[in-house]
Amino acid sequence: MNIKAVLNTLGRLLQVEAGLLVLPLVVALIYGEDAHPFLLTILIIGIVGTALTLIKKKTSVTFEREGFIIVSMSWLLMSAFGCLPFVISGAIPNYIDAFFETVSGFTTTGASILTGFDTMNQSLIFWRAFTHWIGGMGVLVFAMALLPMTNSRSVHILKAETTGPTKGGKLVPKMRSTATILYVLYFSLTVVEVVFLLFGGMPLFEAVTYSFATAGTGGFSMSASGIAGYNSPYLNVVISVFMLLFGVNFNIYYMMILGNIKSFFSNEENRWYMIIVAASTLFIAVNIMSVFGNFAQSLMQSFFHVSSVITTTGFGIADFTLWPTASQYVLVLLMFVGACAGSTGGAIKVARVIILLKSIRRSINKMIRPNQVELIRLNGTALDEDVVSSTHTFFSLYMLLLLGSGLLVCLDGFDFTTSFTATIACLSNIGPGLGLVGPMGNFSFFSPGVKLLLSLLMLMGRLELFSVVIMFSPKAWRRR
Amino acid sequence: MNIKAVLNTLGRLLQVEAGLLVLPLVVALIYGEDAHPFLLTILIIGIVGTALTLIKKKTSVTFEREGFIIVSMSWLLMSAFGCLPFVISGAIPNYIDAFFETVSGFTTTGASILTGFDTMNQSLIFWRAFTHWIGGMGVLVFAMALLPMTNSRSVHILKAETTGPTKGGKLVPKMRSTATILYVLYFSLTVVEVVFLLFGGMPLFEAVTYSFATAGTGGFSMSASGIAGYNSPYLNVVISVFMLLFGVNFNIYYMMILGNIKSFFSNEENRWYMIIVAASTLFIAVNIMSVFGNFAQSLMQSFFHVSSVITTTGFGIADFTLWPTASQYVLVLLMFVGACAGSTGGAIKVARVIILLKSIRRSINKMIRPNQVELIRLNGTALDEDVVSSTHTFFSLYMLLLLGSGLLVCLDGFDFTTSFTATIACLSNIGPGLGLVGPMGNFSFFSPGVKLLLSLLMLMGRLELFSVVIMFSPKAWRRR
Repeated sequence: MNIKAVLNTLGRLLQVEAGLLVLPLVVALIYGEDAHPFLLTILIIGIVGTALTLIKKKTSVTFEREGFIIVSMSWLLMSAFGCLPFVISGAIPNYIDAFFETVSGFTTTGASILTGFDTMNQSLIFWRAFTHWIGGMGVLVFAMALLPMTNSRSVHILKAETTGPTKGGKLVPKMRSTATILYVLYFSLTVVEVVFLLFGGMPLFEAVTYSFATAGTGGFSMSASGIAGYNSPYLNVVISVFMLLFGVNFNIYYMMILGNIKSFFSNEENRWYMIIVAASTLFIAVNIMSVFGNFAQSLMQSFFHVSSVITTTGFGIADFTLWPTASQYVLVLLMFVGACAGSTGGAIKVARVIILLKSIRRSINKMIRPNQVELIRLNGTALDEDVVSSTHTFFSLYMLLLLGSGLLVCLDGFDFTTSFTATIACLSNIGPGLGLVGPMGNFSFFSPGVKLLLSLLMLMGRLELFSVVIMFSPKAWRRR
Repeated sequence: MNIKAVLNTLGRLLQVEAGLLVLPLVVALIYGEDAHPFLLTILIIGIVGTALTLIKKKTSVTFEREGFIIVSMSWLLMSAFGCLPFVISGAIPNYIDAFFETVSGFTTTGASILTGFDTMNQSLIFWRAFTHWIGGMGVLVFAMALLPMTNSRSVHILKAETTGPTKGGKLVPKMRSTATILYVLYFSLTVVEVVFLLFGGMPLFEAVTYSFATAGTGGFSMSASGIAGYNSPYLNVVISVFMLLFGVNFNIYYMMILGNIKSFFSNEENRWYMIIVAASTLFIAVNIMSVFGNFAQSLMQSFFHVSSVITTTGFGIADFTLWPTASQYVLVLLMFVGACAGSTGGAIKVARVIILLKSIRRSINKMIRPNQVELIRLNGTALDEDVVSSTHTFFSLYMLLLLGSGLLVCLDGFDFTTSFTATIACLSNIGPGLGLVGPMGNFSFFSPGVKLLLSLLMLMGRLELFSVVIMFSPKAWRRR
């Protein structure tokens, strides 16, 4: 482990965070709010970050494992410092609560400990929403677009921070250009959403913050009444559609811009993503007719919550814990599936589910014809066997982590449904679950220990498990 | 597919079942009960079985896939015919209910649709318990010990019917001798349990039927009050210990008889099995102190239910749905784990959990040192990579089946906990779950469709998924 190089990079990333905090500072000045929580935080992060950059590295050579450690540590540090404005302002006086809320923001989970919005002023709400936006595409992908970095180190970081079974899908040879392209696409799509929301009568501040939360597939509410407060079918549908769009692999958008418009429909994962959304929406719409009375209303509610859950955004405009069990169960299934690889969403991802199913089918075929050799194809190209086996390993680790952590969450003594769905809602970066952590509930009642555990699960979920798990291996920290 | 050879073999197995039904017939005669339900069933099965054996097979050559189909079809047919005594006697007038109960018996699940024991006379209770005993070690392993069969066909059948990640572990080169050895061990251990239960004051009939249910890790109660009705700590502890013993790989007993006594403790899976039991027992004992007041009582209750659930037996002497959530959750975790490979228990099996964890650890090590080649060892010997990948595939299929079927069970409209734990309790061959299907509940309230689905899951669980899933592949039925 090249620890000095790691610390040096972390220092530079903290400097970037200090820079990002200037935005909410400006918001505070515009709204005439108390700016000193942000000033103080920028000062602290700036000093710590700069101190770390002063660490002289002997060599700048870094390997895959340094990439993973850099990514996990930077997400951890950015949350540990990024929660200071909440603590300093007194909006969330308890440090662990503030840390939970900030991890939830950066990891685009959207699980909240807030029981009301009385103590939150506009600049804090802005920062909270902004963490979603930064975390969505990736803190380090953002930094990569800004900072000079060797191409080899960037590859490892991009690999650790982007989602999906086949990592490091670079759009162009130069990593820095790939990062820039991704952020330009991301920024543009966010701006388009802001325009659509403004058109529906949403005030600018809410339009921007809700667009941040949609873009990152985060899910924080910006007020006590949330999106439901607008009581606007137009806004509901716009947000549903944009949630889905941010659940698409961003490489597809790049290909569409290059002229390959068909790729949106010809991409195998994207096709299944849309089929799953359509089927689940129809199923739930029919199932909840008894709750809403008419089909149009049921369809709108169903579409909104299916989009919200499969993209792991987690917005809610109705209390789905009151819906029939089968509808709730479909939503829980979608919590496992998640959106597409290379999107801003969390969970297992559609591509991995496809690979798992194809691998199972291959095993059955092998029982029938033991001597036949069969390759697993995705989008027409044969997958490397390493990808298939690492997908299985990912799934096993995901399920074992979920089942194991669920036990620790249960120790707080809340009911089975609450404990289990709180665990998966955090691990899959969704936000709300069922029971007490349903869309109308919050996470404030858990003990500090469980809040820290859930924070860790959120980080694991966002960074696709291994980058975080590797931090617990003593071997990773040993010098070469 | 050599369909004629398959039908021919199925015919002979039905003849064996007709022979097995003579035992409850004798019980009916001894107790002076109505014997005609058994006589009629023996007649029907005998005729159908003999008719099938008259089908001339062109060649007796069978392959792996024929082995799987024979096993699945025979379990299905034996249940479809084996439930007739319940229907004919009127004890369970509904055919689907009787089928569910019989599948539950053969697969050693122990999930029951009985709401009381008023309509069940002794001979029916005996048959119900006997299905557990036959199903435990395997219907076909039993038949193999009796019927002349080519060694090659026997290998495929033993492979499909025994449990665990490394199939077809033969004790001696000749398959028929292996089957005989397994049944002699199984029979002897059952007799020892009967003696212990008699010593504790249990009447002979109950001692035999409860031993059947323990040996097969089944879990049917023999009366409305069940084991709790005896109110005997001695009996509770004896049954707890024997449940655990029947959860051990029977190969270990064979090795112990050959003089290798140490193998009980040196076997890696068995060691972990005992560690998991000890840890779970202690955890729950402490956690339920608030319910039972004193530690001795808590420890006894905890030990009984941990043994009952990890071995997938499913006996209950207390309503654990009233225990703290964490204790219930540990029991749910044990529902996934199950007992040892090569035992009579269901679920994933300790050996597979060990392989999964080691494979995950290997993936993490590979991230740290990408060029290092590492083999996965179990009991000191390196595992074939095929075993590792098929363990992952098994786990993925298990979880996907569980999650997917849970949705269909939810359609009946019962609560989340009931629906989900009913699904896993059937797939893992345990019996009771939580909620309405807790140890004091039953499965009678589900719709016929869900009962058939749960029956299928029980069969899949007992035959370790693939043998049953293969039946749904059109390719498997094609002629070569």
